[in-house]
Amino acid sequence: MLLVADNLRITQPAVADALARRDPGPIRALVLRCAAAGAQAIDINPGPLSRNGAAQMRFLVETVQRACSLPILLDTTNPEAVAAGLAAAQGRVLINGFSLEPHKLRQMLPQAIAFGVEIVGYLLTERSQVPSTLEARMEIAVTLYQAATEAGLKAEQLIIDPVMVPLTWEDGLRRNREALTLIRRLPELLGVPVRTIAGISNLTSGAPDVRRRTLFQSTYLPMLAAAGLDMALMEVSDGVTMQVAKASRLLTTDAIFAWDAH
Amino acid sequence: MLLVADNLRITQPAVADALARRDPGPIRALVLRCAAAGAQAIDINPGPLSRNGAAQMRFLVETVQRACSLPILLDTTNPEAVAAGLAAAQGRVLINGFSLEPHKLRQMLPQAIAFGVEIVGYLLTERSQVPSTLEARMEIAVTLYQAATEAGLKAEQLIIDPVMVPLTWEDGLRRNREALTLIRRLPELLGVPVRTIAGISNLTSGAPDVRRRTLFQSTYLPMLAAAGLDMALMEVSDGVTMQVAKASRLLTTDAIFAWDAH
Repeated sequence: MLLVADNLRITQPAVADALARRDPGPIRALVLRCAAAGAQAIDINPGPLSRNGAAQMRFLVETVQRACSLPILLDTTNPEAVAAGLAAAQGRVLINGFSLEPHKLRQMLPQAIAFGVEIVGYLLTERSQVPSTLEARMEIAVTLYQAATEAGLKAEQLIIDPVMVPLTWEDGLRRNREALTLIRRLPELLGVPVRTIAGISNLTSGAPDVRRRTLFQSTYLPMLAAAGLDMALMEVSDGVTMQVAKASRLLTTDAIFAWDAH
Repeated sequence: MLLVADNLRITQPAVADALARRDPGPIRALVLRCAAAGAQAIDINPGPLSRNGAAQMRFLVETVQRACSLPILLDTTNPEAVAAGLAAAQGRVLINGFSLEPHKLRQMLPQAIAFGVEIVGYLLTERSQVPSTLEARMEIAVTLYQAATEAGLKAEQLIIDPVMVPLTWEDGLRRNREALTLIRRLPELLGVPVRTIAGISNLTSGAPDVRRRTLFQSTYLPMLAAAGLDMALMEVSDGVTMQVAKASRLLTTDAIFAWDAH
């Protein structure tokens, strides 16, 4: 299980401020902290970037890769920003992501195919809704996989995100349990070992305090790891959750067991 | 997931001492601490009780049920002690347990049938070995289930223990992952919804420090809960592990989600 930092996001005031001032210092410092904490990839989430999207993404990608050589995820709905990020990226880069929404199929998927990079596919309806049943999710997974491969994407370029929902949603517990089932069954459903990613922070949107957020994230992470999750998108700044993430990774590998979780 | 305290065991010097002196005080205090921590059942593990087994088990059962009204598990290989415990028990009582070892099939299983109580069945070979492959475990589960039901046990009286092994065993990671798979597949394998129990403390035998033990136990618990485990046999005295156990229980129920994990 690869641990992807979601810390570099525009909703963090320090990030928004640094981006507005084109000040690489705070972003560099953040990325170095993430890497030191054990992040194995950096998700760059600058929001929709409605103005100067391309220039802003280029700045962010260049700043991140001056700080570290970790893979980068371009996490925006702005296709020009994705294009600029792909052009600026020097190492492994992923597009995060597309779904069955027609404009994403049209604007995002072809870039992944043209650049030969990996892309995250969200299990959302054409109207960007989270499907309400496991069956609907599975149908969307099949449709998404077919749409992507028929357009020319290779199966190994696709990483499926089942879309975790906040636990506080009316049927949040059920939906997230079904996401676990989906992750486990996906290889059999699609007939190929397509990888998966899940956003851990989503689970605890609206958590009243850090302690609760940590408890529920660090309880869900092992469940996701045991289901076979390949990439966990998470805040890497919380020491407890990171320890559990590393222990989960260790317990789901074929390594020789050692007490130190790396 | 029911949380069963394994704290009342002869390997704890305070328990051994109190039992030797027939002093109910320390045992009562221990049981009250377990109940306050959230234990939902008490496992009584006095070892093989080679001398005065019946009298000792009677003393323990009576002491525990004067302290609380929680269900009791009689965790001994001594059949006379089990008989004495069954006779002394006033509330829900379970035998923990039997396996395919001939003397256990002969001495333990009939007591569960005669008293109409639940019994834990360990997935061990006839020679009390942990089977080395998932396939062997599944075969033992089928054989054990058939032996029990043919002798007259009802399926709902049987609780299967896949036997977690220490993570430090050469193939401990693989074996424990296969135990997760077994727990998940058992209802389909046997064609009935037989319940499961697992000993969490087993995982970390030999752990160099409390912090490591807590980390790996609290990482495995959610994995077991998500696989469908019905009863977790664990030290209930560690606050972190208990919080994770309660959060795991909450996340795997159909309750309305609340941030407080009970």
